[in-house]
Amino acid sequence: MLNFEESEYQTRLQKVKERMNELGIRVLLVTDPANMNYLTGYDGWSFYVHQLVIVLIDQEQPIWVGRGQDANGAKVTTWLDSDHIRAYTDDYVHSTLKHPMDYVATILQENGYGEASIGVEMDSYYFTAKCLESLKHDLPKAAFQDANLLVNWVRLVKSNQEIEYMKKATQIVKNVMQTAMNAVQIGVRECDVAAKVYHAQMTGTEDFGGDYPAIVPLMPSGERTSTPHLTWTDRRYKHGDLVILELAGCYKRYHAPLARTMILGEAPQKVKDLSRVVIEGISAALDFIKPGVTCAEIERVWKKSIEKSGFIKDSRIGYSMGLNYPPDWGEHTASIRPGDKTVLQPNMTFHMIPGIWQEDYGVEISEPFRVTEQGCELFVDFSRQLLVK
Amino acid sequence: MLNFEESEYQTRLQKVKERMNELGIRVLLVTDPANMNYLTGYDGWSFYVHQLVIVLIDQEQPIWVGRGQDANGAKVTTWLDSDHIRAYTDDYVHSTLKHPMDYVATILQENGYGEASIGVEMDSYYFTAKCLESLKHDLPKAAFQDANLLVNWVRLVKSNQEIEYMKKATQIVKNVMQTAMNAVQIGVRECDVAAKVYHAQMTGTEDFGGDYPAIVPLMPSGERTSTPHLTWTDRRYKHGDLVILELAGCYKRYHAPLARTMILGEAPQKVKDLSRVVIEGISAALDFIKPGVTCAEIERVWKKSIEKSGFIKDSRIGYSMGLNYPPDWGEHTASIRPGDKTVLQPNMTFHMIPGIWQEDYGVEISEPFRVTEQGCELFVDFSRQLLVK
Repeated sequence: MLNFEESEYQTRLQKVKERMNELGIRVLLVTDPANMNYLTGYDGWSFYVHQLVIVLIDQEQPIWVGRGQDANGAKVTTWLDSDHIRAYTDDYVHSTLKHPMDYVATILQENGYGEASIGVEMDSYYFTAKCLESLKHDLPKAAFQDANLLVNWVRLVKSNQEIEYMKKATQIVKNVMQTAMNAVQIGVRECDVAAKVYHAQMTGTEDFGGDYPAIVPLMPSGERTSTPHLTWTDRRYKHGDLVILELAGCYKRYHAPLARTMILGEAPQKVKDLSRVVIEGISAALDFIKPGVTCAEIERVWKKSIEKSGFIKDSRIGYSMGLNYPPDWGEHTASIRPGDKTVLQPNMTFHMIPGIWQEDYGVEISEPFRVTEQGCELFVDFSRQLLVK
Repeated sequence: MLNFEESEYQTRLQKVKERMNELGIRVLLVTDPANMNYLTGYDGWSFYVHQLVIVLIDQEQPIWVGRGQDANGAKVTTWLDSDHIRAYTDDYVHSTLKHPMDYVATILQENGYGEASIGVEMDSYYFTAKCLESLKHDLPKAAFQDANLLVNWVRLVKSNQEIEYMKKATQIVKNVMQTAMNAVQIGVRECDVAAKVYHAQMTGTEDFGGDYPAIVPLMPSGERTSTPHLTWTDRRYKHGDLVILELAGCYKRYHAPLARTMILGEAPQKVKDLSRVVIEGISAALDFIKPGVTCAEIERVWKKSIEKSGFIKDSRIGYSMGLNYPPDWGEHTASIRPGDKTVLQPNMTFHMIPGIWQEDYGVEISEPFRVTEQGCELFVDFSRQLLVK
């Protein structure tokens, strides 16, 4: 049932422990669902209640902690022995009287870590302000350290098996994007296109099925293309509509996201111009990519490319991605933007998405890619041109 | 474009301010995306970066704060004037140098609330430990108060318009469940059923389209029915498989969730027994419901009903639900369980879902319902029986 050899999980854990050692952390509380999955294999939609994985520096196996009814899910999906799966009773759920972190504190005390230095993911959704307050209250002698993104940074360079999964996600997203482009037509409802997109995402290919992406289909149309994160309505597409499609394929929680822009009817000159600028900028940036360059340097190449056009892009043009759960497929580590000194290495994987949004329209064209030994490899082979339909 | 009359948003805001006054809170920071939507209409998949709505006790309009590229989304979806839409620059996003709450602190200072009593949603995903730490650092003279679930409790009793939206979601979920039951067959892949489920969720009806539910299709099969929150694989269903389907319809972010259980082939006696017990328990509990009774009393009726069977249910049997975003359609307020003293009132809406999970199988059968003047009204009319196929 495991998606990876147990040895791969062990290697990941080892890297995490090395980092913990460097930071003087003896306990790491891993609340990000992607990080939990990365270290243990755990896969379930149970992150709407508090749950986590505890990494103890001198114990071989992490401890999964979650709600009683999810413990069987941990038994089914992780490589952990059942005595490393600990469940709290249901009266901890959405309670004002007790907090699941009280239970976590008890486990830490039991294991002799009640006064240890404890790393927490300070800015992870799912590690709320209340989580920290409860832990501090329960373990007044512990020393809490910000270990935000510690595991995320370990995730940055992918294993070959992870790349294989992302390539499968890629096969899915090609179908998904083509399905969406075929479905968007004058008179068709946006929701009916969303339905077909989802269908293609889950049915995957004949050889393997798809998983739910960490972000729903983003498909603003008309003036709503002036902003990237709107979904769909039941409005019918009409002549002249500009349509942005940011969609993903997902396989075993690994993502291949892709954005394209299309228009129903003749494109206004400004849209053609913006598309051309974005496409040229992407090409220039991709040509530059190879191990050893930094994220900031890539962004400079992009900026230089679009400079003459007069268009301004004031947000990052890409980010590291791979394994994830809602609400984001981005890893929150390396970003392709000014100041990011991350040095590229083979098997880092990014989504380059230099969307530009104006007051009443926008264009998004993207490429997910993998850094190789010599340069970079695109995951997807799909025309970047503005589709005029 | 608004889903509700502006006056309805005003009424909601007024109720929130009354509660703030009772608690001596002058500023409320609303980070829960459902609460943001409830007060302003904001609807976008942008909650993977920090964003919030600031309610100032003596200002008419709340202030939306989010990322630059999402500001147009706020202009399109909310009733707020554009000077109440404030956006931070992209260098705040996933940065280790600055935090979006620094920007929020500046806005509070500008408005003269830098030393006020500030209510925060302490245990809301999306209000991380780092959010609170940043705010405390930036506003050392402010007094922070736990205002967790303040808005959620205001959401508990629905307006008639909200009920209408839930009824539309109900029409969708009926199709969705029937589609799933038709699709689950020996030899079919689970992912292909998921694909059809999603398709039915988004395409909705001829008259209106569907929205994405806050929880993905939960559809464990075989031994995986021993736990509720597993999704699907690309395994093919085989003879004898027990299949749990927990699915929702969603309309304008309002939900109608529904769970049913089916089996491919003859049901073992233990499964038949468990289904019967759950169905009897649901009937008994529903018959008891009317305004004035408490959630805890409903649970007692359920417990009494199943007592003789020998089966044990040690988790809550339902919760308030309605408007929501991932990761949960539950509202985290009233739960149907021991100790919950919430007194039912008309137009409260719940999902009664007394799932029971054994070591290697489980049964889930649920009913979403609305409390009426005299009793309760089921949203969905759909046979509760174990479907033997």
